Amino acid sequence: MVLNFSIEKSEAERCSFDIASKNFLDGSDSPSSFLERCVNKINRFEEKIGAFVNTDFENSRVAAEKSDGRWLKGTPLSAIDGMPIAIKDVMETANMPTEQGSPLFTNWSSGRDCAAVAALREAGAVIVAKSVTTEFAATQPRDTRNPWDLSRTPGGSSSGSAASVGIGMLPAALGTQVIGSIIRPASFCGAVGYKPSVGGINRGGSFDGFSQSCTGVLGATLSDSWNVVRAITSRAGGDAGSLGVLGPLKIPPTRQPKIIASLETAGWHIADENAKIAFQKALTKLQDSDITVISRNDNTFVSDIEDVIFDSVAISRDINAWEGKWPLNTYALDMDASKLSDSSKERLQAANKMNQSEYAAVVERRANARAVYSKAQKEFDICVTLSATGAAPIGLGSTGDPVFTVPTSMLGIPSVTLPVLECNGMPLGLQVIGFEGHDAELFSFASAIEEKIKQ
Amino acid sequence: MVLNFSIEKSEAERCSFDIASKNFLDGSDSPSSFLERCVNKINRFEEKIGAFVNTDFENSRVAAEKSDGRWLKGTPLSAIDGMPIAIKDVMETANMPTEQGSPLFTNWSSGRDCAAVAALREAGAVIVAKSVTTEFAATQPRDTRNPWDLSRTPGGSSSGSAASVGIGMLPAALGTQVIGSIIRPASFCGAVGYKPSVGGINRGGSFDGFSQSCTGVLGATLSDSWNVVRAITSRAGGDAGSLGVLGPLKIPPTRQPKIIASLETAGWHIADENAKIAFQKALTKLQDSDITVISRNDNTFVSDIEDVIFDSVAISRDINAWEGKWPLNTYALDMDASKLSDSSKERLQAANKMNQSEYAAVVERRANARAVYSKAQKEFDICVTLSATGAAPIGLGSTGDPVFTVPTSMLGIPSVTLPVLECNGMPLGLQVIGFEGHDAELFSFASAIEEKIKQ
Repeated sequence: MVLNFSIEKSEAERCSFDIASKNFLDGSDSPSSFLERCVNKINRFEEKIGAFVNTDFENSRVAAEKSDGRWLKGTPLSAIDGMPIAIKDVMETANMPTEQGSPLFTNWSSGRDCAAVAALREAGAVIVAKSVTTEFAATQPRDTRNPWDLSRTPGGSSSGSAASVGIGMLPAALGTQVIGSIIRPASFCGAVGYKPSVGGINRGGSFDGFSQSCTGVLGATLSDSWNVVRAITSRAGGDAGSLGVLGPLKIPPTRQPKIIASLETAGWHIADENAKIAFQKALTKLQDSDITVISRNDNTFVSDIEDVIFDSVAISRDINAWEGKWPLNTYALDMDASKLSDSSKERLQAANKMNQSEYAAVVERRANARAVYSKAQKEFDICVTLSATGAAPIGLGSTGDPVFTVPTSMLGIPSVTLPVLECNGMPLGLQVIGFEGHDAELFSFASAIEEKIKQ
Repeated sequence: MVLNFSIEKSEAERCSFDIASKNFLDGSDSPSSFLERCVNKINRFEEKIGAFVNTDFENSRVAAEKSDGRWLKGTPLSAIDGMPIAIKDVMETANMPTEQGSPLFTNWSSGRDCAAVAALREAGAVIVAKSVTTEFAATQPRDTRNPWDLSRTPGGSSSGSAASVGIGMLPAALGTQVIGSIIRPASFCGAVGYKPSVGGINRGGSFDGFSQSCTGVLGATLSDSWNVVRAITSRAGGDAGSLGVLGPLKIPPTRQPKIIASLETAGWHIADENAKIAFQKALTKLQDSDITVISRNDNTFVSDIEDVIFDSVAISRDINAWEGKWPLNTYALDMDASKLSDSSKERLQAANKMNQSEYAAVVERRANARAVYSKAQKEFDICVTLSATGAAPIGLGSTGDPVFTVPTSMLGIPSVTLPVLECNGMPLGLQVIGFEGHDAELFSFASAIEEKIKQ
């Protein structure tokens, strides 16, 4: 380990840009000073952790200095003006290559920003690094280490984003999730993670075309996460045709939920016993605060949800196989198949075995599951579940089991993970889940949950 | 002109691959011979017309020869095995650059095929050329000429695809349409044009991210067009999350419609008098075949449709402005603004003036219009209208008025244009319009319409 989680667990939170920015207006702190603190931490930890593919401190310093002046004049471009941020290396950036975690794309650059990064720059954010992704944001890891235990995986596919934010090298980083690639690594690394409603953030220029995939953010705090997302969506919107995440530009006010559904998902029976105990303790705290917690045994809407999400992994696997045929087929045919990992080759084989009718059938199953979930809107305010089966597994060969995160990807609904639990001395996330398009409400409820659990 | 339309109007149809392929099995004709006929025509016309940005005869000949063998063995990969086809130059191709009609992308190549082209190659098709597009498939023309009158525009943005197929250089070419970029140029050049239901063809690797945009095809005949689209969608599907165009692999059987709605759209009052006369004559022919033609005066569903599509241009303009902000903003900021056309700069200015709420409002207007159209499904089988206000305008500075084509783009519904009308000695299309997801039915009805009009 580089730091001990049980002792230093607030490390990420100490890197909150939202908190620091309160001192930018009077000059007692500044984006430039904030950046230097981040650079110091990067210099201290990065060699061991390997969170980044590329960094660009030179341009970042120039950008931060410009931001200093805007804050001093009282005219910041946004709540995240001057925020140093890392971008998952599947998203195009004008100032750094976009390598997709694949040797096929070493040093490849489009020379332009993706839509989300263009919006971040417009909001004054400082694009300081490209963070390590598994190959094509899928399963093949790229050797980033968990900052709280270097022998463990940081999770994936947003490995570098989670590791860097979890240990407090940066206040925020962009990630993407089609299965569990934001919530799971955030849980393993002790960061807040936010996967928006499907379509919630414009994916133009991100190599991430799956129908249930989504750009999201890993942040030091809920407010940092929200501020980043709204800085993007107010400028670049969502995917074409989607409205994009709406709501106030700064985190919406805390609101205590009345009824919470506790979900087991297909993961409960394989979860670590200590993870279960930590989760149950959290539920007890919520109940002690006059929040009603219901489960599959109390409510048929909840049991219906448990039923339809049970096959989330199989449904998502088939949908992703068909949708992922391209561009994998062209990488094998037009480029260099020997540079593809075995897992990529297996995914391509699975894709080639599928046909359009099978895809239509599984998309219909997903649509039915989404309908079942959305019908429950009057039964409870939010759902909670674990963000992972336990602590990050030992070893760098796998990014861990995504079983607790697939349901929200499959359902296209927003979720956040709060780094408020602990399992075997490592971080563990509590996942809070909302309804499609109601991301702002989810943040209001999640803020209340966080308060109660930390009390 | 290079040929006179009134005399040589069947030129495109003579280049039908579907018809020719009947002689491939016994060796009396072959894909290689077909390709050489195309190459001869390209050599004869291309210098005057300027339909192509790049051609690749060398690889095409190799591919065609392989196809010869498959047909002789009775094992063609698909109905379009060996078909020479051109690809609009906004879609990635492994063997040729993708320049998007912009000097910012001169010689740019991704080194891979887009999803639709990968599927075409899998089906045995021969990717022979990249066809001229207006800048970024928008409004700025790139000097392709109308093959039937070199002083006139071929229309846009699929300018080269329409010109090459209209004059019979090739049996089919891919195009894209967000406003009128398939149907209008097909009408101007005398080709069949098919814009599928929105999401109908996988747009992976096509620089065309608008929510109402769609990849489609310009073909010598209805059957060539259908065969191309189904060869693609059976292998690559639609956009991620959409099922893609479904139906038989070869054109579905002819079916006579019982009731047709004749739409005026916002275009009728500015259409050429001779275009109106040609359209009315066609309607009379259909009525003589016991088809009932209804209009806004006969049916409130039709008048409701006329009302909601009247603002199609304004709705589409606002939606496209917001969705088109990226990547235009990065071309200006990260690349070289001086290489953008004035019309691109104006679109970027319009985009920068919009906000997320305005976009949400106009998307809601579109959703309402789509709901009104889809409610009419029991009132009539198909709609018909003109494909353009008249003959292609004289001059190469504009690609012509899209007023007749925007409604189907805005509504996300499939349409085909049949080159069965004439206006002032130039081709004019009859547009046949169906319901979302019912593309196969549209082809059945359109085949019947074509038969009746040609009788």
